[in-house]
Amino acid sequence: MALSTDRFLADLDALRRIGAYRSGVHRPTFGPEDMQTRHWLAAQLEQAGLEASIDGIGNVFGRHRGAGPHLLAGSHLETQNQAGWLDGVLGVVAALELARSGLPVDVCAYADEEAHWGDFIGSRSLVGALTEAEIDAARNRFTGEALRPKLEEIGLAGRSRPQLEEGRYKGALEMHIEQGTQLESAGLRIGVVTGIVGIRQFRIVVTGQQDHTGGTTMRERRDAGLTAVRLLGMVDAEMPRVAAARSVWTTGRIALEPNAPMIIPGRAEIVFSFRDLSVEVMDRMEACLRAVVQESNRRERCPAVLEEISRSAPALSDPAIVAAFEGAAESLCPGAWQAMPSGAIHDSQILARKLPVGMLFVPSIGGISHHWTEDTKREDLVLGMEVLHAAAQRFLAS
Amino acid sequence: MALSTDRFLADLDALRRIGAYRSGVHRPTFGPEDMQTRHWLAAQLEQAGLEASIDGIGNVFGRHRGAGPHLLAGSHLETQNQAGWLDGVLGVVAALELARSGLPVDVCAYADEEAHWGDFIGSRSLVGALTEAEIDAARNRFTGEALRPKLEEIGLAGRSRPQLEEGRYKGALEMHIEQGTQLESAGLRIGVVTGIVGIRQFRIVVTGQQDHTGGTTMRERRDAGLTAVRLLGMVDAEMPRVAAARSVWTTGRIALEPNAPMIIPGRAEIVFSFRDLSVEVMDRMEACLRAVVQESNRRERCPAVLEEISRSAPALSDPAIVAAFEGAAESLCPGAWQAMPSGAIHDSQILARKLPVGMLFVPSIGGISHHWTEDTKREDLVLGMEVLHAAAQRFLAS
Repeated sequence: MALSTDRFLADLDALRRIGAYRSGVHRPTFGPEDMQTRHWLAAQLEQAGLEASIDGIGNVFGRHRGAGPHLLAGSHLETQNQAGWLDGVLGVVAALELARSGLPVDVCAYADEEAHWGDFIGSRSLVGALTEAEIDAARNRFTGEALRPKLEEIGLAGRSRPQLEEGRYKGALEMHIEQGTQLESAGLRIGVVTGIVGIRQFRIVVTGQQDHTGGTTMRERRDAGLTAVRLLGMVDAEMPRVAAARSVWTTGRIALEPNAPMIIPGRAEIVFSFRDLSVEVMDRMEACLRAVVQESNRRERCPAVLEEISRSAPALSDPAIVAAFEGAAESLCPGAWQAMPSGAIHDSQILARKLPVGMLFVPSIGGISHHWTEDTKREDLVLGMEVLHAAAQRFLAS
Repeated sequence: MALSTDRFLADLDALRRIGAYRSGVHRPTFGPEDMQTRHWLAAQLEQAGLEASIDGIGNVFGRHRGAGPHLLAGSHLETQNQAGWLDGVLGVVAALELARSGLPVDVCAYADEEAHWGDFIGSRSLVGALTEAEIDAARNRFTGEALRPKLEEIGLAGRSRPQLEEGRYKGALEMHIEQGTQLESAGLRIGVVTGIVGIRQFRIVVTGQQDHTGGTTMRERRDAGLTAVRLLGMVDAEMPRVAAARSVWTTGRIALEPNAPMIIPGRAEIVFSFRDLSVEVMDRMEACLRAVVQESNRRERCPAVLEEISRSAPALSDPAIVAAFEGAAESLCPGAWQAMPSGAIHDSQILARKLPVGMLFVPSIGGISHHWTEDTKREDLVLGMEVLHAAAQRFLAS
């Protein structure tokens, strides 16, 4: 059976109606609309001739019944709250269409990439990195509801959580919206992902002395907010010297205490993170941050303490998959694609622990994601599907 | 009758027991404990031979029955929540003792200096700067309770609000704790206040573009938090060039939106204020701030908008009162006093619109105020009372 981009678009439109919210969708993981999409997908997979199942953590799996070598393809079905219709869904429906086109593809909707209940619980379960104890402890980050009774309620309690079958896959593919404006602003239609960045996140706590702004002279003050501003000024000056062309670094959070107009801040908390594809570059950036904090402590009267919150390793795409994507893109839209890192994280980063992975991006209009106005031109969706299909064939043949 | 510092200390101790909270007191304006202290004071004033009254906004007034020239002396009785035993009370009890010592002094406890219901409603009523409409609109800033029914409940509704009698006073005196560490750290026991600083307060709003930290390159970003940090860095570098030796400037509040670790801030709000005794210096500081915002808007992609929140004029002490305080201090504690501005605001700043004013500071242990651990050594309280008494005599004779 041949590829049908009409059927692919029709399925995207069908899923858009489940949990519709304005022009987007609202389908938090394991809510009724989310479960409706999981059962919808299982039915589609069966209809496409695959062996469909939903496992004990909510992964929807469609196993190809024929001979290999096989590919794994997929993404996620659930959404952020009041979010877009394509984030995740696009990669699942594209994988379904790959299977329906006759390619030896297993399809998977990895559960809860959007982290309503945990941190990549679906894909980590597939690579053997999710314990029962973690499921016992997991709670919904918005409502505080425990995961165990929820799994019972939605009929998944007691089901097994199979891991990826060793030796079965030549590689794993994921198509996704870009969630940025790089393709759009360069007038390009396809991004071939060279890797998913690693992220390191740090907390910096500055301790000063809360005081009345009127009664305390400049010389007497220990203003934690001022020390934080100076420290961040040094980060701003120094980080470009060690970062690479595509590195990003961000102060997302500054919290002063008491944060009152007429009181000298006694405490400042900063959350700072950076991302890059290269561990070496990230090591340089971390060394820079540590040196800045050390220099701040040498200069300032308010001590700053640096603490690591989290770190994830970058996941480089498999060169043969990248080559297949590039060949397919150059053939179908010559000059209208580019190689690029993924600044956002995806299930493929988890799968990379076990399999060669590769990702394909289509443009996001205005770079918007995690919002109901998220969208992509229909012709870009179609082109993405065609490139994915051609690349899968190229890679299988390689 | 002579000055009695024992009686003065005994009265401070008596008031410390009304609304006692740990080693401090909790007497919010017009609460039962606060009303108890107002009636206590009225009784003491009558006993001292003054004509006592409580007016329609809660000012407790004791009018000297003899011939002038008169002085006005006082401070406030209510406290911040769970606060200290001396802030305000010291100046009221010292004024009472001045009157009992036989000096021609009117005593006043100005209502609600601590701003539970408004902004200097007691002293502003006395200088004719409080309207009935403002009282109608006033609400408790913690509970939201309306002031009108409260005045009814505590028996003050319908009472007149007399203004200060024109021509009656040679000047107004207020003794207060320093609420800072300048006297303590210099090893001094008395501060002669040269004036109460003016305050100008500004809001700076920086508008950027909220974005995903992973999907947005450094070049594409419009990070409102980063612009705020750079702007505050310029303020930090430039303000010392234009400020005077005793100027203070403070960023009390920084609020990023959404202030989430992994999201580029789309908006930053800064509240910045400065204080000085000189209008000329404050004008220079304001020009500096405006120039920094302009420079930020020239350099940065995120526009910054500066808005004035409030401004108050500095109130210089009367030179003859300052001279009387200095003479008395040098006579009673030679070399152990200094002239200094008041960085905090006080009722004297309001009275200065109508009368020559002067203030005397005694040290605050550890600079603590607005907290129940606030304290001052008993010998410093006694010395302050003696300096105030001697200075009142000098000034009356001048």
